[in-house]
Amino acid sequence: MHMVRIAVAGASGYAGGEVLRLLLAHPDVEIGALTAGGSAGTTLGEHQPHLLPLADRVLLDTTPETLAGHDVVFLALPHGHSAALAARLGDETVVVDCGADHRLTDPAAWERWYGGEHAGSWPYGLPELPGARDALRGTRRVAVPGCYPTAISLALFPALAAGLAEPSVVVTAVTGTSGAGRSLKPHLLGAEVMGSLSAYGVGGGHRHTPEIVQNLSGVAGRTVDVSFTPVLAPLPRGILASCSARTSASVDEVREVYAKAYADEPFVHLLPEGVWPTTAATLGANTVHLQATVDPDAGRLIVVAAIDNLTKGTAGAAVQCMNLALGLPETAGLPLTGVAP
Amino acid sequence: MHMVRIAVAGASGYAGGEVLRLLLAHPDVEIGALTAGGSAGTTLGEHQPHLLPLADRVLLDTTPETLAGHDVVFLALPHGHSAALAARLGDETVVVDCGADHRLTDPAAWERWYGGEHAGSWPYGLPELPGARDALRGTRRVAVPGCYPTAISLALFPALAAGLAEPSVVVTAVTGTSGAGRSLKPHLLGAEVMGSLSAYGVGGGHRHTPEIVQNLSGVAGRTVDVSFTPVLAPLPRGILASCSARTSASVDEVREVYAKAYADEPFVHLLPEGVWPTTAATLGANTVHLQATVDPDAGRLIVVAAIDNLTKGTAGAAVQCMNLALGLPETAGLPLTGVAP
Amino acid sequence: MHMVRIAVAGASGYAGGEVLRLLLAHPDVEIGALTAGGSAGTTLGEHQPHLLPLADRVLLDTTPETLAGHDVVFLALPHGHSAALAARLGDETVVVDCGADHRLTDPAAWERWYGGEHAGSWPYGLPELPGARDALRGTRRVAVPGCYPTAISLALFPALAAGLAEPSVVVTAVTGTSGAGRSLKPHLLGAEVMGSLSAYGVGGGHRHTPEIVQNLSGVAGRTVDVSFTPVLAPLPRGILASCSARTSASVDEVREVYAKAYADEPFVHLLPEGVWPTTAATLGANTVHLQATVDPDAGRLIVVAAIDNLTKGTAGAAVQCMNLALGLPETAGLPLTGVAP
Amino acid sequence: MHMVRIAVAGASGYAGGEVLRLLLAHPDVEIGALTAGGSAGTTLGEHQPHLLPLADRVLLDTTPETLAGHDVVFLALPHGHSAALAARLGDETVVVDCGADHRLTDPAAWERWYGGEHAGSWPYGLPELPGARDALRGTRRVAVPGCYPTAISLALFPALAAGLAEPSVVVTAVTGTSGAGRSLKPHLLGAEVMGSLSAYGVGGGHRHTPEIVQNLSGVAGRTVDVSFTPVLAPLPRGILASCSARTSASVDEVREVYAKAYADEPFVHLLPEGVWPTTAATLGANTVHLQATVDPDAGRLIVVAAIDNLTKGTAGAAVQCMNLALGLPETAGLPLTGVAP
Repeated sequence: MHMVRIAVAGASGYAGGEVLRLLLAHPDVEIGALTAGGSAGTTLGEHQPHLLPLADRVLLDTTPETLAGHDVVFLALPHGHSAALAARLGDETVVVDCGADHRLTDPAAWERWYGGEHAGSWPYGLPELPGARDALRGTRRVAVPGCYPTAISLALFPALAAGLAEPSVVVTAVTGTSGAGRSLKPHLLGAEVMGSLSAYGVGGGHRHTPEIVQNLSGVAGRTVDVSFTPVLAPLPRGILASCSARTSASVDEVREVYAKAYADEPFVHLLPEGVWPTTAATLGANTVHLQATVDPDAGRLIVVAAIDNLTKGTAGAAVQCMNLALGLPETAGLPLTGVAP
Repeated sequence: MHMVRIAVAGASGYAGGEVLRLLLAHPDVEIGALTAGGSAGTTLGEHQPHLLPLADRVLLDTTPETLAGHDVVFLALPHGHSAALAARLGDETVVVDCGADHRLTDPAAWERWYGGEHAGSWPYGLPELPGARDALRGTRRVAVPGCYPTAISLALFPALAAGLAEPSVVVTAVTGTSGAGRSLKPHLLGAEVMGSLSAYGVGGGHRHTPEIVQNLSGVAGRTVDVSFTPVLAPLPRGILASCSARTSASVDEVREVYAKAYADEPFVHLLPEGVWPTTAATLGANTVHLQATVDPDAGRLIVVAAIDNLTKGTAGAAVQCMNLALGLPETAGLPLTGVAP
Repeated sequence: MHMVRIAVAGASGYAGGEVLRLLLAHPDVEIGALTAGGSAGTTLGEHQPHLLPLADRVLLDTTPETLAGHDVVFLALPHGHSAALAARLGDETVVVDCGADHRLTDPAAWERWYGGEHAGSWPYGLPELPGARDALRGTRRVAVPGCYPTAISLALFPALAAGLAEPSVVVTAVTGTSGAGRSLKPHLLGAEVMGSLSAYGVGGGHRHTPEIVQNLSGVAGRTVDVSFTPVLAPLPRGILASCSARTSASVDEVREVYAKAYADEPFVHLLPEGVWPTTAATLGANTVHLQATVDPDAGRLIVVAAIDNLTKGTAGAAVQCMNLALGLPETAGLPLTGVAP
Repeated sequence: MHMVRIAVAGASGYAGGEVLRLLLAHPDVEIGALTAGGSAGTTLGEHQPHLLPLADRVLLDTTPETLAGHDVVFLALPHGHSAALAARLGDETVVVDCGADHRLTDPAAWERWYGGEHAGSWPYGLPELPGARDALRGTRRVAVPGCYPTAISLALFPALAAGLAEPSVVVTAVTGTSGAGRSLKPHLLGAEVMGSLSAYGVGGGHRHTPEIVQNLSGVAGRTVDVSFTPVLAPLPRGILASCSARTSASVDEVREVYAKAYADEPFVHLLPEGVWPTTAATLGANTVHLQATVDPDAGRLIVVAAIDNLTKGTAGAAVQCMNLALGLPETAGLPLTGVAP
């Protein structure tokens, strides 16, 4: 088979860098154009010194012309940019959008949470969600999920799909700071982040909320209420989502449902009973580690999921979907082992 | 007034060290015997190099004899040791127990969660809880609350007391590693902790759960179900508790109740609307920063509280209660300002 | 005595915030105007939530008018701003400049390292340096030292003054990220800093080098060559300076010289033989912890000093010098104990 | 070619875990016996949850019998254990010792620094050192270098070999905490490590010193004095070594020598002029990033090198040497890209 030629728009950011890190180890891929916004004209090495084999590559402007002529184009851009670019790239190109533009199916939800005109939805890049994998095979367009919705949807859908949990869920998800990207904001400075924990977007303020609602309502067959509180913690990567809902099921019923749901999934790992996930075990890997239990005193199901927000939460999912779109083995180029300690 | 002469049992640990740090700045206190277990015979400086003025003090064995003759004795020991020591110290001594032995009023709860015989309960050292302050004035015995129960009880009691929240609460609280003390366990090693988030004691497994239930049920006047998930994060100090419950109240009603509950409290600070707490702002301070809101989509009250687990969560509360027990100004020696960044 | 009324210019930054944290605990000080640049008009609480008692203070513009009428004005500004402001404040005001403008005595050195016209030098705010304390008593102007020069000068001057070390020193100093201030630069983002170590300003590129040369050459009575490499590490505060020079002295001679040099210094602590400093022991304290030894195989003296860059390295020194300038006890308001763990 | 069957002794530790992480991605390797000390009988997943594909493997006792029958045996054990084991494994087995037993060629140095009888020296596993690669091709025994000696030797040997630096070097190397292994010592607890910097083994006290002396003296053709100060910093992985020596060479001469020395080395990367290394760029990679300059004021050469102490500093070197011993491509299974941010 010929090598798949890819381009990355937004190569100087965290998501773009992680796409490249994974693709450098992908057996079937050849790395073409790397583009950026304000950093065009500089070398990749100035922004991503860890990507040694690409250090001397010069970043081009992000335009339909520089991105043309590739089999796959990864877009790692702020929201609002992908629809116009994709339209210019043509249907023969696989466009994998790491941004939010095409995740929501409901134009009203888009308008409420992001504002502006809805660009339409693309096949949703979470293959483990019921029905999603089939829609991704052979597709030319992929909407890569948000990092929080990935962890939270995988933590909760099996119980909701099986009717084991009430459709009202409470989630507190703790995350490292790379999820906010490379934006220069005071609260993301190292001196602010280290030694501190902070909540943000509380009370329905985070834009990932409607995406979580969409995913969980889809599998539950009814509207699921989602109370979502994100917490920023002092680490570069990682999401630990603590998810709960009222249940009358037993631990055994719950674990059986999860074991069955993920039995054939290469990247989702239900830990042995009594073992709880750590994000370090997923660092740099495309894996989801999870555990589920029931608190009989509180009458609640509790599921904790750990992912690397940049790998399974963004770039790993993007590559996984590219594999599905192109008919490659779904796991090609995707690490199952984390980097720890 | 004469200086209050104090002793600290467990001076080589984190809680004991923090008690000493605060008391070194207390205007009315003179530091007497410092005792330890296995470290007896060494100097305090070997264990607590930050306590420079006490660096040359030699640690004594923890016995009734070494602790005798002080006005106040702080016990920072593993659970199970305080009842026998306190009995030997006599009623003229104020005994402030930083451990768990006398927190629970229900012997059955003690037996279920800790095992062994219940040593009885002492006045509970959370002055901000309704009724608690009066019981602490002039007392000779204090049970200092656990760090999680402090943050969570203060986050939730005003809403429960006012009937604004259903008596079924969900809490995920993220903490630094000093809460586990100086115990040598593999999962507390720096290389394991840094760069990782992990859940533990999930599903009703943490011993602070019955203490939270006791506090909240007491103010609610009925049993409150508590679903509590603690998360370990890479920082030395700090607890950020994300707490929620179903509500039909509005944000304004909720904020009014909290503003009123804490109007006269010197250490509890309701942040301006829209501002969410960070643990860094409480580092080394005896303060609680909190914020409350309502998520109308999810129909839930959400309250986030930040404390320093070693200060307001342990040693600061111990000193605050000593002040009440002795009739000193409640705020004496207790910092309102954190150390940031 | 009447309360000393102070103003802080640059109150929204790290240095200004630390000055305020210390002054809130100073028994003789009353806090007046707080000023800022772009943040004027906002409250201090938006920038420094840890300074709870000042949270509602509104930041004023930094002008001679807003700063007038105070006994002491602390300037925590980028370099180049203090001379003009100080001229407008008049000689009756004590001006304590936390910036670099008046540290260097040699106009040529100023021009080489900072550029622009030299504003002249003020009494140098490192009282522990031979001769410095006398110049600070009663002064109306203070040039607070840089954080690195504080740690390194105190680590090396006793040996150089005693002729125990050759006048050619090699220093690698590791620092937390608050030393760079609150500037929004990509390499200071939390995601970049955590999990990484990096060198910068290597090979004579750091502006603190001429200040170190000036201090050490002054005590040695001859030019001292200084090779200085700063390293950025993932922590908010702290400098650990590893300093060495050729020597033929013995460990005992060296330790005797250091013990004597610092015998009467309240803030400089020579650790017991064999114990090496940690920055955590100095967190938030105005202390310097140091240790000295001789490596006989390499023929070198090695001195390691730990400070908190924001306290003894900046704001603590500023307050210490204010105390000297006003004839207050030198240690007033300055903590000897760190916040650990 | 048939798959190389390997065993790892010490699979529950950090070095053993990293060997396995790399070998899981090695195209020519099949993983056989995994052994441990006290953890024998447990599964690997309990200790190394990031090594998902091996999670269910049960750890065996470390004995000649369990290790027999493999093509390559990696020893990741405390020093003192490898000679006896290797003798029992026979000459047909490649034994790669990640410990210190066979690194030093001088029995007197061994006795001084480690004590006990010298077990003899094995080919030294730093292929980039002059002469070392040839000795490693086809060898049955490898002594993997220490992590500090790797970084420091590669930073300094080109200048010393070219006569551009005086044979008296000063090194301060900052490291993450995984270098100390998984040993349960109070100063390695997360709460102690985070937010702190500390020096240790200062003044010729670190056991890696004689190994550095051996390497540098070998290439210089005369005894090189080494002043080595290690510093512990709050990160899991990474060494940043700041190395200097007197020189009269120019920057251009120095950079030319380094460029030439590493022109054909796949893992050693001299950064573009003016760019300084960060350890994050090497995280999980077998790479060395370095930069060299001359400080004309101080008359010193300064070289800074960054590595991942567990990869190029230990396990990556072990795999690189296995490749040489077996005649495989030297770079097989070894990542060139780090995991950042």
